[in-house]
Amino acid sequence: MTDQGTNLDPWYDSYADRTAGLSASEVRALFAVASRPEVVSLAGGMPFVSALPREMVMGSIEKVMRDNGPMALQYGSGQGTPALREHIMQIMAMEGIRGSADNVVVTTGSQQALDLVTRLFINPGDVILAESPSYVGALGVFRAYQADVAHVAMDDEGLVPQELRDTISRLRSEGRTIKFLYTIPNFHNPAGVTLSWARRLEILDICRSNGILVLEDNPYGLLAFDKPAPQAMRSVDDEGVIYLGSFSKTLAPGFRVGWALAPHAIREKLILANESATLAPNSFGQFVITEYLDQTDWRGQIDTFRGIYRERRDAMLAALGEYLPTMSWTKPDGGFFVWLTLPDELDSKAMLPRAVKELVAYTPGTAFYADGQGAHNIRLSFCYPTPESIRTGIARLATVINGELDLLRTFSGATLTSPVPTVSSAASSVGNPPPNTL
Amino acid sequence: MTDQGTNLDPWYDSYADRTAGLSASEVRALFAVASRPEVVSLAGGMPFVSALPREMVMGSIEKVMRDNGPMALQYGSGQGTPALREHIMQIMAMEGIRGSADNVVVTTGSQQALDLVTRLFINPGDVILAESPSYVGALGVFRAYQADVAHVAMDDEGLVPQELRDTISRLRSEGRTIKFLYTIPNFHNPAGVTLSWARRLEILDICRSNGILVLEDNPYGLLAFDKPAPQAMRSVDDEGVIYLGSFSKTLAPGFRVGWALAPHAIREKLILANESATLAPNSFGQFVITEYLDQTDWRGQIDTFRGIYRERRDAMLAALGEYLPTMSWTKPDGGFFVWLTLPDELDSKAMLPRAVKELVAYTPGTAFYADGQGAHNIRLSFCYPTPESIRTGIARLATVINGELDLLRTFSGATLTSPVPTVSSAASSVGNPPPNTL
Repeated sequence: MTDQGTNLDPWYDSYADRTAGLSASEVRALFAVASRPEVVSLAGGMPFVSALPREMVMGSIEKVMRDNGPMALQYGSGQGTPALREHIMQIMAMEGIRGSADNVVVTTGSQQALDLVTRLFINPGDVILAESPSYVGALGVFRAYQADVAHVAMDDEGLVPQELRDTISRLRSEGRTIKFLYTIPNFHNPAGVTLSWARRLEILDICRSNGILVLEDNPYGLLAFDKPAPQAMRSVDDEGVIYLGSFSKTLAPGFRVGWALAPHAIREKLILANESATLAPNSFGQFVITEYLDQTDWRGQIDTFRGIYRERRDAMLAALGEYLPTMSWTKPDGGFFVWLTLPDELDSKAMLPRAVKELVAYTPGTAFYADGQGAHNIRLSFCYPTPESIRTGIARLATVINGELDLLRTFSGATLTSPVPTVSSAASSVGNPPPNTL
Repeated sequence: MTDQGTNLDPWYDSYADRTAGLSASEVRALFAVASRPEVVSLAGGMPFVSALPREMVMGSIEKVMRDNGPMALQYGSGQGTPALREHIMQIMAMEGIRGSADNVVVTTGSQQALDLVTRLFINPGDVILAESPSYVGALGVFRAYQADVAHVAMDDEGLVPQELRDTISRLRSEGRTIKFLYTIPNFHNPAGVTLSWARRLEILDICRSNGILVLEDNPYGLLAFDKPAPQAMRSVDDEGVIYLGSFSKTLAPGFRVGWALAPHAIREKLILANESATLAPNSFGQFVITEYLDQTDWRGQIDTFRGIYRERRDAMLAALGEYLPTMSWTKPDGGFFVWLTLPDELDSKAMLPRAVKELVAYTPGTAFYADGQGAHNIRLSFCYPTPESIRTGIARLATVINGELDLLRTFSGATLTSPVPTVSSAASSVGNPPPNTL
């Protein structure tokens, strides 16, 4: 907060304690930078909505306005419309979830569901367990409610159960109150990995036996590239899991419609919190989405999205192999993100201005940790740019990375007389892999 | 909370302290009851969106989808679109407000702006000053953030300045921290009165000299029936006032688009809080409203709404004069609501089930107080039902009120042998004022 701590704000002494946790995320600052057309942005998590045929949406809107205009333009209930909630149950059935539409609460994107769940459970100083790394937007919410986040290590199969046990034991021995585990089991943001089925069961068991609620955030689950993702954790535990879903990635984020499926008692409180926060989610979006799910081949459209993102993932993995062969990165089976690990001597946040100068943007790994980790990581998004742009972007990124490494080596004096060729030339002749052996 | 305090909720011990303030409002319970078609609902504050020509909205939607579909379906910024914010400045200029669109933050209805401002300023136990009575939805937000509300008396000119001074002095002498004054200066919800211009200046002066922020909530300001409302408080104080506006009453609530105009430093924090809560307000609604404001005669449409609501206000005041001539009520110059005062021996909340049995619904006065006042008051909404329904509804209400009074008199034994005729017969022959002399 640039304003905080200065004399320019006459209300400086009036703010609530929780505003200390309010700060602009790295992602936010990047949105402004990355919006310049000459920059290849591998930073944002914007879905490629241009692949959604306009007539699929217009047809739904026209029908809503013809048949239900006054209701779609009116206030709705704080829980969301019954028709949309029934559709949501059908969508979740694809991930093995059974239950009642009575326990669904429609929210202003699943971001708001995150906010409301945190509001319901977190006193200042309570602990939330989260993957290491975790979603930047969730960390922002947790901070805004003055929670402490304890990161739990992941590997290629996702959250590591033994690490979870150890973290719980440690925190309990310190007398801390753990409220819930926040997890993104499918095509993790930002890590790109998927939690295996066996681990889902094991983690549910750990949380159940410790009285810890699971907050299962699943915006990307239907965007699997090869085989379907494992079934939802909620599919085998309806009392210990709050499941969050969203139409932002399978349809469009512009309507801001997401949902929570919660145990009954929590559901009741979520509705009240939703009413307090916004009175009700927007009726218009709910009616249009209901109509869209009723009358279009939305499953076919998700297949279209899947195909587009698969091609982009492939382009990114190929370009990484070509331009940065000595680095390591995750290989996502779906979703939007690859997690790149840099050599220890590089700082991804410090390197960002140079990257933007080279016309490529990314999100530094530090954005995805509550505790300052992540300096050697980068989240790369393949959802929005074309395969060609992705290739260009990774080539530019390699130029920057290799340039930084070169500079470090120069200053350390080790290679002052024999500089390694940077990848700049390779970036302008993308057919030739750079002689990158760093 | 029916679930709280029972053994049915396994998460009972996990909730945050603030959930103690979460409870279903009277208005919420009424929405369910009042939605039965045979009930005349004088309860809700739903605008009469059927008076909005479908083609005015459809034309705007078609243009958005034709010219800006992918942007309208995409995530937007946490502050809202620049184009909409510029329009909002023009709308506020009608109330004397000058300023920069940079200081506007678009929110998910102005309800969310209330939530975010409260989030920014309130620590548990802080005091918010509010009119007596005040908007039920604001009181719910304040409770959810564990604020204490101190009501300040109103009269026919709105909030009474001397009462404000006295309340501030009393609270300060008790060592309390007062964060802001929440006020609805125009066509107050629920009281129906308008704060005079002289008092606006006086109240701003009181707040300024006491370092108290003013939260000016103005959803109804453009719905004046006879002469325009006085200019906004924000028009003469741009550092001490956060102004809240909404498209819910002048266009349609189904898009959930409202806004806050805040001093610069607060604006910055509001955007961050908005991003944390929902990432961004819905793009689709913002684009459609922008187009609507660009290409339709929206001022003419507001005139249409004004005419409709004026006619309904007239119908309600006439029916009250006819059926409940000995009671007292406010005479609103705009907006949606009349505030009715019952004889002391009646309890509006206890009477409600009987009213619903007689097929009329209203909101009991207690909903509009944080401290249990309002038992002898009723909020009557004239915004949604037709003039004929309003007349029928007031007639039914008179039946109920007179029936209750009759019953009380019977039990007190005073008139056992000479019952006063109830208004039931009058309700079925609406041309004849009932011989109501209670």
